[in-house]
Amino acid sequence: MKAREDKQAVWIWYPGDFEVRLHERMSVKRRTRDVMYPAYWRLDRHYSNVKFRIVYDLPQEETIRIAAEGTFSLYLDGRDNYRSNEPEFTLPAGRHELAVCVFNDVEVPALLISGSTITTNSSWEVTSYQNDWVMAAFWTFGSPDNPPSQYRLSVTPMSPVTEELYQGFPLFDFGRETYGYLRFHGLKGNGSVRVYYGESRAEALSMDECYSLDCFRVSNDIGNSEDGAYTLRDAKAFRYVWIHGDSDVSWESVSMLYEYVPLTYRGSFECSDPKLNEIYEMSLYTLHLNTREFFLDGIKRDQWVWSGDAYQSFLMNYYSFFDLDVTRRTLIALRGKDPLVKHVNTILDYSLYWFISLYDYYLYTGDAEFIRQYYGRAVTMMNFVLQQRNEEGLLEGRLDDWVFVDWADFSNEGAVSTIQILLVRSLEAMKVFAMLAKDGTAASGYSKLAEEIKESTLRLFWDENKGGLLHNCVSGVTQPTLTKHASMFALAYGYLTSEQQERVVQQVMLNPDTPKIRTPYMRFHEMAVLCESGQHELVLKEIRGYWGGMIDLGATTFWEEFDPSLEDNAHYGMYGVTYGKSLCHAWGAGPIYLFGKYFLGVAPTSPGYDTYKIQPNLGGLERMKGTVPTGEGEIRIEMCRTEIRIESTHGKGQLIFKSTEFPTCNNIEVRVKGQNRYEVDIETGQMYVITYRD
Amino acid sequence: MKAREDKQAVWIWYPGDFEVRLHERMSVKRRTRDVMYPAYWRLDRHYSNVKFRIVYDLPQEETIRIAAEGTFSLYLDGRDNYRSNEPEFTLPAGRHELAVCVFNDVEVPALLISGSTITTNSSWEVTSYQNDWVMAAFWTFGSPDNPPSQYRLSVTPMSPVTEELYQGFPLFDFGRETYGYLRFHGLKGNGSVRVYYGESRAEALSMDECYSLDCFRVSNDIGNSEDGAYTLRDAKAFRYVWIHGDSDVSWESVSMLYEYVPLTYRGSFECSDPKLNEIYEMSLYTLHLNTREFFLDGIKRDQWVWSGDAYQSFLMNYYSFFDLDVTRRTLIALRGKDPLVKHVNTILDYSLYWFISLYDYYLYTGDAEFIRQYYGRAVTMMNFVLQQRNEEGLLEGRLDDWVFVDWADFSNEGAVSTIQILLVRSLEAMKVFAMLAKDGTAASGYSKLAEEIKESTLRLFWDENKGGLLHNCVSGVTQPTLTKHASMFALAYGYLTSEQQERVVQQVMLNPDTPKIRTPYMRFHEMAVLCESGQHELVLKEIRGYWGGMIDLGATTFWEEFDPSLEDNAHYGMYGVTYGKSLCHAWGAGPIYLFGKYFLGVAPTSPGYDTYKIQPNLGGLERMKGTVPTGEGEIRIEMCRTEIRIESTHGKGQLIFKSTEFPTCNNIEVRVKGQNRYEVDIETGQMYVITYRD
Repeated sequence: MKAREDKQAVWIWYPGDFEVRLHERMSVKRRTRDVMYPAYWRLDRHYSNVKFRIVYDLPQEETIRIAAEGTFSLYLDGRDNYRSNEPEFTLPAGRHELAVCVFNDVEVPALLISGSTITTNSSWEVTSYQNDWVMAAFWTFGSPDNPPSQYRLSVTPMSPVTEELYQGFPLFDFGRETYGYLRFHGLKGNGSVRVYYGESRAEALSMDECYSLDCFRVSNDIGNSEDGAYTLRDAKAFRYVWIHGDSDVSWESVSMLYEYVPLTYRGSFECSDPKLNEIYEMSLYTLHLNTREFFLDGIKRDQWVWSGDAYQSFLMNYYSFFDLDVTRRTLIALRGKDPLVKHVNTILDYSLYWFISLYDYYLYTGDAEFIRQYYGRAVTMMNFVLQQRNEEGLLEGRLDDWVFVDWADFSNEGAVSTIQILLVRSLEAMKVFAMLAKDGTAASGYSKLAEEIKESTLRLFWDENKGGLLHNCVSGVTQPTLTKHASMFALAYGYLTSEQQERVVQQVMLNPDTPKIRTPYMRFHEMAVLCESGQHELVLKEIRGYWGGMIDLGATTFWEEFDPSLEDNAHYGMYGVTYGKSLCHAWGAGPIYLFGKYFLGVAPTSPGYDTYKIQPNLGGLERMKGTVPTGEGEIRIEMCRTEIRIESTHGKGQLIFKSTEFPTCNNIEVRVKGQNRYEVDIETGQMYVITYRD
Repeated sequence: MKAREDKQAVWIWYPGDFEVRLHERMSVKRRTRDVMYPAYWRLDRHYSNVKFRIVYDLPQEETIRIAAEGTFSLYLDGRDNYRSNEPEFTLPAGRHELAVCVFNDVEVPALLISGSTITTNSSWEVTSYQNDWVMAAFWTFGSPDNPPSQYRLSVTPMSPVTEELYQGFPLFDFGRETYGYLRFHGLKGNGSVRVYYGESRAEALSMDECYSLDCFRVSNDIGNSEDGAYTLRDAKAFRYVWIHGDSDVSWESVSMLYEYVPLTYRGSFECSDPKLNEIYEMSLYTLHLNTREFFLDGIKRDQWVWSGDAYQSFLMNYYSFFDLDVTRRTLIALRGKDPLVKHVNTILDYSLYWFISLYDYYLYTGDAEFIRQYYGRAVTMMNFVLQQRNEEGLLEGRLDDWVFVDWADFSNEGAVSTIQILLVRSLEAMKVFAMLAKDGTAASGYSKLAEEIKESTLRLFWDENKGGLLHNCVSGVTQPTLTKHASMFALAYGYLTSEQQERVVQQVMLNPDTPKIRTPYMRFHEMAVLCESGQHELVLKEIRGYWGGMIDLGATTFWEEFDPSLEDNAHYGMYGVTYGKSLCHAWGAGPIYLFGKYFLGVAPTSPGYDTYKIQPNLGGLERMKGTVPTGEGEIRIEMCRTEIRIESTHGKGQLIFKSTEFPTCNNIEVRVKGQNRYEVDIETGQMYVITYRD
């Protein structure tokens, strides 16, 4: 998305429209038993009619080649009755304005112009005819035969690990959860084939209740469509497939094309506890499977882009792939277009997570240009949100708004404290965006409002006896329900005094009487907050138990929800549907974030990791080592009970650690901070070896 | 659009989306010399993802057949994990909610369900997932093989009237302006064919400057595509075609498929002056050619839907075809969707004409349901308009707004008086709509605002010396420019005192020093206002001269602009383009309205012609007769200098006429109104014969 100054031609389009169109397509991919289950919110659409322009100054005439996705017409210097749609055009020398209209009502109108000096790139502007001449967007598409509409993920062949006969039909096990297109090799005969997919063995063997299935007719020509293999049209999420072919149908073997985004595993974590290593690797795989055109919630169900889910995926991504393409795609798709009538994904909290996610994007990447580019859309969305505050100035769900917070047994009637905390954080984010957009008035407005709402939220919801924030306030009356949620966010965002923090940890978080959190979604935040409070050992115990518990039940990726008290196949049900639970859910991959941010302990303290801190914590482990990506660079950490080794390639870091003995460092002075805490400044390109004692 | 209670299944869709999609397609049809020239405003798009629903109560189960444009899934009672996409489904007996999701990102998602009792019709609701369960829309599409996306106008074969060789190539004359697809019969050989179209002979003979052209390759199979005829893909507007074939190419004959909307010519006018009859018939043909998917401005150029142009076509239509389908399609397409960023067609006045046109629709048809259906869109559009008033409360063009008023030599800087008058009328319209929507508070708000702006407009712009409204006011200073425009509209809408009216007529309208109006567009209003002031003879003289002047120059349809002072082919140029002028422009057809409303003298006085008045005026003619449609019914009038004959099939009418002798009527008393004016009440189904003296 950054300006590209070089002369290589790239396909260009209206900013956001590539993502909006891709999102429209993805939002209707979900199938329940082969029947469409589209997203239940308005799907935004690309502008079908746009115009590109550039002003050039050429010493001599130049012939350009024009490729367009859609119908195009080109004209010079505003003489729009004199247009050309020829694939080549000779530009006159001198200073001229070149304009190209492109219309496409199916895919995004896009343009690729290549000349020896005039080429499409970010120096072009584009308009949707709404007084909006903006910088054209582009990505990696650079050739006429690779236009943006043809964007597809990568595929690679995979084979099943085992095959067994069950009730006379073959059941294939691909060894672990996967996603892609089933293939039949040497398919012959005449008749039907029915495929039952399962994330679990039980699901695949349930013809009547498995979530995903396929059915197709075999004829003699179908089998030889490509090199003797027949590939099913739609990709599915599964580990097992049970295949019923009519007696006249046969095949030699079955395989699959695994579909994925090629990602570099830039983050790593390895420690002295093999179970935790297994959890970490499985988390990475879970996240990778859900990191696709966008950050999805789950690959079997819903395959949708949910803002609250993405909020966590974004954070996990910063500690693993640091893939910013999928991050930006997701942020753009979630925001969509105006007019805003409903909240993102219909959920009030999910609108708020969008602001916070955008702020995190800025913090981890320092990409101010992206923020400025989408500042306008952030402003109109915040206007939309702020319109629905109640008389006390608090944000409430309107009729038909979904106030989610979590899958849990509480009422979200009236003003919910968690929502207010998320709003405060969103307003703080808007303040930062407004500063970047040089909109000082707006910045102070957002800042003031954030302070006001923070103050009134703490006043209304803080319960001095219970030591935490109560859950909601109906018609001005704060209800007695105590949940972990609001207190967790308030603590994480730094809205509590240190005394309040301590009370929240002891009286709410560690209190066995507070209702338990059942979703990895909120356990993510719960664990993060416990780490913020120094409860690393407890957190490792929880990770071993909760995430380890899923592995003990045979999980190969982490689930949407896990309730250890359930029995056998009851684990696979959700929403009243027998195999309704997603067994590969992005929000199950939280340990990636926890290990990176709270055990390796790395976090940016200024945008783009120009400064950062490292607060490593073994949490009782013997040793750990790992890598945290920091944009272009990375930080490598290795730690045991007596030594910390750090190496970094970008920015200025501050290592903060505890030691019971006075520590030493190989090449720099260690600063004493009191209470057994020490600091070391970390510069790039050096190996720091600190000797200490745990 | 009205609720359809019968059980016949019809295709249903989200209201407005059929029109929005059709408008998107039509807006990019324009070609200049075979190169696309798309509309330069945001093209709105249909919702790709919608859901239909109905609650039924069946005494016994029933099997329905389902057809969809797009991918569909059907489910019962909110059990949306249990969906079906089978073409047949058996509905259980009892009371249930049936829901059907349809996704279509190319054409409008549409649904056709046929069962013995459960069928798609207006009792279904539809949502775009924006809290908007609204009545589903439908039209005439009733069978699975005639879905809405396949809507096409009718075609009929036509042959050229003459053929001549010019520079060795055949020039065909189709006798008059027409629109459609050129066809080659018995096409043979190998090579290229180039077709040069002309609305005028000169244009067709200008290879280098004709506006429309075609070029195609002939091969041996092309000629036999359908019954030995090869039809060009795109329809064109033309009277002449000059065809250049390569020497290896030959054909037996050339014809065309005339493309049109089948319309009933329900209005008529015939009088003692053959020239006027010719003008009337040519006006009808001009309007018919431009009455298509929508009311277009012109069929050669732009083929777009312009609100100011449509405002007049709507009025002409009420006196000719009374086709409400194209009227509603045009009103819906012009409004488009939110968010409003620019004005309709980018023109401030054109936003205002939309409100006035919608009001006229209500007045002429009484279709309150349509108003209620689109009231929400009218409200948001008025909000958008009102946001841009200046400190004095007057409406000004923003930067990048086009304030058009007319093709004329005046500046539209600051607050333009014509714009304020149109705003007042628009607010009065909104008051009526708000009443229909039972929104009393809004109604009185609009009414109050209309009064305020009317008062301040007259105060600021009325020039007591010049006896008319001045043109504009810049930074609070009213400029001395006097034009006819604002005064015309103020008079027509009844905003002037009778004294002011008289002064406007004498000092502005009839004053040879006031700048002349050159476009039929504004001559429409000018003539109407002169009629309102009883200047019928003068108007006939003007019609004979101005419209007759075009006929004298060989026009077969009326033009976009006519300046009698130009010479020869200079008439064909506009916008600096040699053949840029449209020779078949809807706004050229104004005489239809003038004859119907001001000579036959018919106008509704309450919505839907429940009451109406007839003020016939011979304007110096010996005799005239004609018909004015009144919705389902019609009024027939015949008049000479001694007798008026009236027959009506709907509503209660009031005949108002002048007579120098005391008149008599065959079957009812004539009321004396003084000053030689008389009145007769007209009931349906009777023939009134009034004897009078001119």
